[in-house]
Amino acid sequence: MSKEPTVSTEAIDLPGLGALTVVDLAQPLTETTPTIQLPEPFANTPPFRLHEISRYDERGPVSYWNWFECGEHVGTHLDAPNHWVSGQGGRPVDEIPLRQLVAPAVVIDRTDEAAADPDYLLGLEDVRAFEAEHGPLPEGGWLLYRTGWSRYAQDQEQFLNADESGAHTPGIQAECARWLAEESGIIGIGVETVGTDAGQAFELDPVFPVHHYMHGAGKLGLTQLANLDRLPATGTTLAAAPLKIEGGSGSPTRVYGLLPR
Amino acid sequence: MSKEPTVSTEAIDLPGLGALTVVDLAQPLTETTPTIQLPEPFANTPPFRLHEISRYDERGPVSYWNWFECGEHVGTHLDAPNHWVSGQGGRPVDEIPLRQLVAPAVVIDRTDEAAADPDYLLGLEDVRAFEAEHGPLPEGGWLLYRTGWSRYAQDQEQFLNADESGAHTPGIQAECARWLAEESGIIGIGVETVGTDAGQAFELDPVFPVHHYMHGAGKLGLTQLANLDRLPATGTTLAAAPLKIEGGSGSPTRVYGLLPR
Ligand SMILES: [Mn+2]
Ligand SMILES: [Mn+2]
Repeated sequence: MSKEPTVSTEAIDLPGLGALTVVDLAQPLTETTPTIQLPEPFANTPPFRLHEISRYDERGPVSYWNWFECGEHVGTHLDAPNHWVSGQGGRPVDEIPLRQLVAPAVVIDRTDEAAADPDYLLGLEDVRAFEAEHGPLPEGGWLLYRTGWSRYAQDQEQFLNADESGAHTPGIQAECARWLAEESGIIGIGVETVGTDAGQAFELDPVFPVHHYMHGAGKLGLTQLANLDRLPATGTTLAAAPLKIEGGSGSPTRVYGLLPR
Repeated sequence: MSKEPTVSTEAIDLPGLGALTVVDLAQPLTETTPTIQLPEPFANTPPFRLHEISRYDERGPVSYWNWFECGEHVGTHLDAPNHWVSGQGGRPVDEIPLRQLVAPAVVIDRTDEAAADPDYLLGLEDVRAFEAEHGPLPEGGWLLYRTGWSRYAQDQEQFLNADESGAHTPGIQAECARWLAEESGIIGIGVETVGTDAGQAFELDPVFPVHHYMHGAGKLGLTQLANLDRLPATGTTLAAAPLKIEGGSGSPTRVYGLLPR
């Protein structure tokens, strides 16, 4: 079992930008980082594995270093449009415009609903209620969907919450996903769960509707986010930093929330 | 041969932060990304390798995704204090404070000198001359050392520039490295080359003086940076985003330069 994300908000004074709070939105990356498990016959991703090269020893007297195996979709990571068949021909992870990676973000909180029902699905009425209180979703920005699921992020079993019918984790209704992808101005959806779709999303129509509609519209996903409870409903700048894997479908990603003080 | 970094500066309007230019300082990550080669008997890092899991086919009809092998010190990457024996017991990459990862940066340009002499070593007099013109190095910030070497960043042979006497790439004199580590207020050094030390640094005293002194002082390194020519001498905010590899000695890292407009 990996350690919890450390306390991660600090005041930082930057020339020309003033004082910021930086919130670390990424989970630690370890051999126990929860990893998605698809049913047969789908191929699965290997988890994160670390291999020591030297540790101040005969293999390298002055240095300690490792190499690692990792899936593009392991741990806190970004889904590029070309990850899904509906986005085939769309942008790979190394070609995502910087204006989509450093962009405004809002947070919709459905922690109570997901605690009461692990299969809770966000609906269009939830988005409408948010907009009535906080104004429209940010044009060119991110919708971060807080469910409290990050409390399970260090434990594969609790995080996937699977039984004989598959995983039970919160997600988004198909019609809401379609509206967010095709009618709203957001360019990405970020979640605390192992993927942007619900654990039971293989039962929805279309299957995996967030992936289907968002990537089909050239939009992005971010998963396994931490510390969403540290962000206000509006006013965060998200800085997502995927590796530039050439032609890749995604990447493990460090993510910061920047808050002017 | 990998493609060049794409044009990567854009004006982005952010709530509370105003208009920023974001400069992408990371190189693409591919199977041809240049990787350090140490002489016998040192163990070397494997390069980046990409493995397809499915591509809209029988292995996964709706998705395309990969897994990969990568060294912590491959491509644009961060060196944590525990990477070096002088920093043994120091911070691993997942515990670096956010105030060091999002911090001011200045750029010293020695492109002409490195073009004339690939073994050029930055000296204390270069730093003094910079400070006389631009003011002191930033307390808690980064020194970015521009050498023009990023022009070779897509080609292993040109980038390492090795002959029978080893690699020939620019670096920093031992006494200058000591001063930057022990007497200046900076917390990290960023370079365009494969490592923070010169290609011939195994001949210096101490060997690999930038690693020795900087990590011994708990400070950081950043390598294989791109687009340093897009940054002003002062006024950049660096945002370095290593993966949170628990206990790791470094990580491939996306890096942004944020410039208020
Ligand atoms: Mn994914
Ligand atoms: Mn290194």
